[in-house]
Amino acid sequence: MLEWVTEWTARRPPAQVLHLDTAAAGRSSLATLDAVATHARLEAEVGAYVAQERVAGVLERLSTDVGALLGVPPAGVAFGESATAALTALLGAWPLPAGSRIGVVPGEWGPNAERFARHGYATQLLTTDATGRLDLEALERTLDVDPPAVVHLTQVASHRGLVQPVEEAALRCRAAGVPLWVDAAQAVGHVNTATGADAVYGTSRKWLAGPRGVGFLAVAEPRWAALDVLRLRMLGDDHPPVQYLESHEAHLAGRVGLAAAVREYLADDPAAVTARLAEVGRLTRPALADVPGWAPVDAMDSPCAITALRPTAGQDVAAERTRLLLDHGILTTACVVARAPLEMTGPLLRISPQVDCTLEDLERLARALVG
Amino acid sequence: MLEWVTEWTARRPPAQVLHLDTAAAGRSSLATLDAVATHARLEAEVGAYVAQERVAGVLERLSTDVGALLGVPPAGVAFGESATAALTALLGAWPLPAGSRIGVVPGEWGPNAERFARHGYATQLLTTDATGRLDLEALERTLDVDPPAVVHLTQVASHRGLVQPVEEAALRCRAAGVPLWVDAAQAVGHVNTATGADAVYGTSRKWLAGPRGVGFLAVAEPRWAALDVLRLRMLGDDHPPVQYLESHEAHLAGRVGLAAAVREYLADDPAAVTARLAEVGRLTRPALADVPGWAPVDAMDSPCAITALRPTAGQDVAAERTRLLLDHGILTTACVVARAPLEMTGPLLRISPQVDCTLEDLERLARALVG
Repeated sequence: MLEWVTEWTARRPPAQVLHLDTAAAGRSSLATLDAVATHARLEAEVGAYVAQERVAGVLERLSTDVGALLGVPPAGVAFGESATAALTALLGAWPLPAGSRIGVVPGEWGPNAERFARHGYATQLLTTDATGRLDLEALERTLDVDPPAVVHLTQVASHRGLVQPVEEAALRCRAAGVPLWVDAAQAVGHVNTATGADAVYGTSRKWLAGPRGVGFLAVAEPRWAALDVLRLRMLGDDHPPVQYLESHEAHLAGRVGLAAAVREYLADDPAAVTARLAEVGRLTRPALADVPGWAPVDAMDSPCAITALRPTAGQDVAAERTRLLLDHGILTTACVVARAPLEMTGPLLRISPQVDCTLEDLERLARALVG
Repeated sequence: MLEWVTEWTARRPPAQVLHLDTAAAGRSSLATLDAVATHARLEAEVGAYVAQERVAGVLERLSTDVGALLGVPPAGVAFGESATAALTALLGAWPLPAGSRIGVVPGEWGPNAERFARHGYATQLLTTDATGRLDLEALERTLDVDPPAVVHLTQVASHRGLVQPVEEAALRCRAAGVPLWVDAAQAVGHVNTATGADAVYGTSRKWLAGPRGVGFLAVAEPRWAALDVLRLRMLGDDHPPVQYLESHEAHLAGRVGLAAAVREYLADDPAAVTARLAEVGRLTRPALADVPGWAPVDAMDSPCAITALRPTAGQDVAAERTRLLLDHGILTTACVVARAPLEMTGPLLRISPQVDCTLEDLERLARALVG
């Protein structure tokens, strides 16, 4: 095991399961947990807003760090409860007439499309290759002849190991003057998310291994002026527009915890993490390829740590997930079709290890899958 | 000191300030802080969703407890990030045509009125008595001759010691068929909030002394069917409507902490807490009435623990608040006019002690206010 990976593991409380479920929520470090608990206690001792003033420097650095990860200036980042809350804030602020079309691939996260419909927007399906990745040449043609009002890409899918070419799409969208929004919930802490998109949103709790209850929205500076935000008088009227999208009654201790988690991630080196997570994906898929009754659905070399298996012998995936957990102590996720209803034809079993995954772990999973 | 009040204090980490700022955020108990931290660690050890399943009974009891406090069945309660998020969810789900008028008193919380305007609603001013309390006879006439689409009352004001007669208003609104919404952010854990209103929302972090980052919305059962909610397919389609307003990517550990805080509050006996907090208000106002340069603005017998002082010698209230904190270790809040712009004419200094406030504390504040 690489030394930094050994340290990554040692920084966390011992796992009570074989945790192959980072795409649901990552395992926070002891330093992250301690930062949250320490801040919460400080709130009780000195008052919540005095405590918040005391960590102003930490929160400022968090904005800088997350801004850098998402490719925007610190003032372009707003923190909220979740990636969902961030998308809702984005939909509420971006000037987009009802009836507008939002371009998505068939593997789009289902709840996002449902939210688009709730806001009165239609989805326009973009062409992909056989693996589900956006076809960039087809995108160029679409942007030329029948452009949607916005392109929305979920950079790393939730239901399987599918990574979209966001940087390349951003170049083409920018050339066409079509805004690109990116759901980076599964991407941040996993792959490069400073991609040149116009808006990016994500969550603390997955690959960054920060606390639950913290998410973030980043908007590129050229788009700030057009945002339609509620400038609450109590906040004053002199802030950059994106700051009015931040929630102020919030899990502040969680933001302090995320700040610690992000610092650890940066110290590990994002490029090294990305490379290692892609390697984990490349280890996982062949290790599970020959398990009877299951078939990997992703490209073997998909550059991420998420792998999905399709049952080929009529198994109930939710029951299999429960069996793996209760009988074998292995944590995975059963993905229902509603996660990607335009692409999925049945439930999938999702495996999403972190950097510390070993071949032995995967062999243990393979044996457990058999029965 | 009453025995239960002594215990209330002993259950908390020692305060590093004289904390007279519950209306900003209360002081959590050690048990509450521990419940949050223990759950967050469990998330890291067994996976966040396994941890959540393990506390299903705690979360169910929380819904029951908060439902009982707000006067609705457990299925009528949805948890979210904050009272603000709860109001936003309510505004998004309640069938109210754009242009509708919402009846409010002049002491209404300013950001609420700004949110109403953002959603396209106008405010209709309701008549009050000289202290700022809703005039119930005038309300009856208004409901008869020129009813707003909704009446919205902030049960306990944020900026001063003002309590609205919500139970009496609820009877009259119901008789007139006009929905009553109640902002209980300062009321829950403070006064009786099971008032018969159609919708009530509040927060964990103030008088209940739960964690930051948790709020709740309660809707009375007769109003459920008319709610327009996004029934996300991933959640299934068989839940009571209000449940679709709950945030699922959330500070779950905070909800576990709130469950602990609510249990402590119920064990203390809400009626005893309400009586004691009203007593604290009745102690505070005369204790500060003769301080040179400051004038209490509230009715001396206002049945709550919040007191506001108006500077009468041209003091900068924000600077005074800072001076009290830095020079005297006394925590208060400087309330800007935006908190209640239809009523306030200048900033106020707010004092909001908890049940453990003593006459010695108030005398210390009185001396510090002088200089």
